[in-house]
Amino acid sequence: MTLDPSDGQLTRELDKAHVFHSWSAQGALNPMVIAGGLGSTVWDFEGNEYLDFSSQLVNTNIGHQHPAVVSAIKEQADILTTVAPAHANLTRGKAAQRILDRAGSSYDKVFFTNGGADANENAIRMARLYTGRDKVLSAYRSYHGNTGAAVVATGDWRRVPNEYSRGHVHFFGPFAYRSEFWATTPEEESARALHHLERIIQAEGASSIAAILIETIPGTAGVLVPPPGYLTGVRALADRYGIVLIFDEVMAGFGRTGGWFAFQSLAEQEGGLVEPDLITFAKGVNSGYVPAGGVIISPSISATFDESVFPGGLTYSGHPLAMAAIVGALDAMESEGIVENAARIGRDVLGPGLAALAAKHAAIGEVRGLGVFWALDLVADPETREPAPAPVVGALKAKLLSLGLLPFFADNRLHVVPPCVVTDAEAQRALALYDEAFSSL
Amino acid sequence: MTLDPSDGQLTRELDKAHVFHSWSAQGALNPMVIAGGLGSTVWDFEGNEYLDFSSQLVNTNIGHQHPAVVSAIKEQADILTTVAPAHANLTRGKAAQRILDRAGSSYDKVFFTNGGADANENAIRMARLYTGRDKVLSAYRSYHGNTGAAVVATGDWRRVPNEYSRGHVHFFGPFAYRSEFWATTPEEESARALHHLERIIQAEGASSIAAILIETIPGTAGVLVPPPGYLTGVRALADRYGIVLIFDEVMAGFGRTGGWFAFQSLAEQEGGLVEPDLITFAKGVNSGYVPAGGVIISPSISATFDESVFPGGLTYSGHPLAMAAIVGALDAMESEGIVENAARIGRDVLGPGLAALAAKHAAIGEVRGLGVFWALDLVADPETREPAPAPVVGALKAKLLSLGLLPFFADNRLHVVPPCVVTDAEAQRALALYDEAFSSL
Ligand SMILES: Cc1ncc(COP(=O)(O)O)c(C=O)c1O
Ligand SMILES: Cc1ncc(COP(=O)(O)O)c(C=O)c1O
Repeated sequence: MTLDPSDGQLTRELDKAHVFHSWSAQGALNPMVIAGGLGSTVWDFEGNEYLDFSSQLVNTNIGHQHPAVVSAIKEQADILTTVAPAHANLTRGKAAQRILDRAGSSYDKVFFTNGGADANENAIRMARLYTGRDKVLSAYRSYHGNTGAAVVATGDWRRVPNEYSRGHVHFFGPFAYRSEFWATTPEEESARALHHLERIIQAEGASSIAAILIETIPGTAGVLVPPPGYLTGVRALADRYGIVLIFDEVMAGFGRTGGWFAFQSLAEQEGGLVEPDLITFAKGVNSGYVPAGGVIISPSISATFDESVFPGGLTYSGHPLAMAAIVGALDAMESEGIVENAARIGRDVLGPGLAALAAKHAAIGEVRGLGVFWALDLVADPETREPAPAPVVGALKAKLLSLGLLPFFADNRLHVVPPCVVTDAEAQRALALYDEAFSSL
Repeated sequence: MTLDPSDGQLTRELDKAHVFHSWSAQGALNPMVIAGGLGSTVWDFEGNEYLDFSSQLVNTNIGHQHPAVVSAIKEQADILTTVAPAHANLTRGKAAQRILDRAGSSYDKVFFTNGGADANENAIRMARLYTGRDKVLSAYRSYHGNTGAAVVATGDWRRVPNEYSRGHVHFFGPFAYRSEFWATTPEEESARALHHLERIIQAEGASSIAAILIETIPGTAGVLVPPPGYLTGVRALADRYGIVLIFDEVMAGFGRTGGWFAFQSLAEQEGGLVEPDLITFAKGVNSGYVPAGGVIISPSISATFDESVFPGGLTYSGHPLAMAAIVGALDAMESEGIVENAARIGRDVLGPGLAALAAKHAAIGEVRGLGVFWALDLVADPETREPAPAPVVGALKAKLLSLGLLPFFADNRLHVVPPCVVTDAEAQRALALYDEAFSSL
């Protein structure tokens, strides 16, 4: 495809005139134009290239325009693009099978949605009907989607203007670097966070609580890898009080942590696999090439709806084109060792490289992560850990863009979230650009 | 593509084992397998063909596998499948422009979502923030989607097990054939329904009401074309009390009524165009070839968010592949006169043909509709209008399938909702099959 700069101008004009953007004031927007991409690179109509270390919204796990996924979409487009959820579709069955193969034998069915929000909606619905209870416990530092129930389950600022539901209770999850529990070690953070969660369960009344919904590794909140023992402890609390445990793996799932699921990647630190009752997913399952998400269901919960009607649904549940992209993406990720690549890059390149940056630049308070899922916690002062002010973050962002790197920022954090296909050379180049940008501060 | 019956068997097996279906008990499901389709026809792997008079979930307005839409998807797949909503994308701008062209000059921006539920979610959000009020008035006989806020705005049975929000109030809309207002004429039904709505507004307190959300023509509830004057009256009430008026055109929009939007098709009966402040859409906008929906926004509401942040969003807002399918579908619908075809088929073939069936078969209590959007209200007794019992509906459904017609049933109603591309011959054939099925009762 030849690029025409006048298309860049047209894109900006149409966007300004007609497109309403999410999570923003519309007046002063000046969005970057993206014309195309391949692997870890995107470009605009002027031919400027950027190393995409955002994976867009942390979703292009397989990189941009992976040929196997593009082919799978085009082949399905020629056969059948859409079909009602009530009918059976071969590609849908194959997609469910691929997903369950990776989730493991504790799960038997998949309910498909369009994205992450409605995945959580339906997981919450299942938990409420399975338990006959209505409250949902979720963490303050979390994001679960923007629809009516999911957004009140959300713990960050996006919850507040959208709070119209009852039955949602929030608690603090563990975050050792900025402890809410006066803890001084990860082990202490873990133990105290579990004590806090149990006290909330007791104070709210266990018999009113349907679900504990947590991101296995809270993502947008800052890649808050839970300290050892926390997931094990949450599983034990859920069992003790008869509460359904939902892991939201929308951002963490399908390769990002260097495993198929984050809960699998954390098995080693937990001394064994900690499995939830329901897993929600989206993004990485097909890298967002076609909108898709869903819920992976354990047999006891799916059996609840063998005789009684599940009261949830949506027009595009199990959409063939989305399903083809899932089959294409998961097969290619497996045959090309893309998940292993993410693990290796995290262990051998990004992990040590980011640690070296932190040692060099005082603005980096902490480095957290694994696989291709990292955050740099930027501080004004390493002693007080006071978050870096917005102008510093803005300057860093502008600098990185000018150097040809598309970064992902959230509050005072720089998230380092390239596609799982990122090469050693690309990761090294990104590290050098981060270094240059921090040096320019 | 050659069809292999063993793929039919595989589809059934994978579906049974791994796919969790919406709105159903999973145990006894025996879903029909759909292998492919073209225009108004679908087929299975055994080579059985069906005339698709369901349009799946009333979404394939342009018919199955329209070559222009398939090509648009494949071309975009080669360029760029996915991009974050924050960036600007040319295809997204073009899709917004196409939609606004058809909605008319009272609207200036489009916010894109994945489907109908999240379209309503975001319209409700805009109305709440625009007015500073929280209650949402919607009709009992309505469906607006399955997410937390949208499903409690829903008025049918699917609302009840999902009711976790506050601020949702339901009222009765007009339905002359089964009046809730002891009305004996459409004019009386309209006037009394408006009186009822105004009393609800007063009793709830106008200053607490953000939005009146109605399907322009309630669809799943039975193609309840509002009697003359109703929409005009609702618009006047919304203006009098400072309430945002939202028309949900998810099912009714983009050709189904023989116009681009149902509110445009009803302008003649209303003696002028009745325009809402927000229009929600999905389905017909791209016939569901790629999941997409959205909100069409009037300038006063979009301007509210010029300076202040709109607190809503989703990963796949304005997804390039979905946008390409919109551009492809809307251009083809226009150049091929597909909307005009729907109007003509409704006026010349389905309207008179269904009326003739009703005259012949006592089980058909009423025929309602326009364009390719019709419902037959089936009764046990034409005098008492008692709804036809489930076994009769079941027998009719089985008979139609055995005759090679894929029907759409909801409660005691047979909805006649073929694609807008349906030909005269196909419509005539369907009428003959309906006749045969009713005769077999
Ligand atoms: C952990 C998590 N859950 C849910 C969502 C919502 O997904 P979507 O935007 O597809 O609705 C996100 C999106 O960023 C997420 O990160
Ligand atoms: C009028 C109306 N609104 C909203 C929806 C929900 O759309 P979706 O299933 O895409 O969420 C539907 C679906 O049938 C509908 O008919």
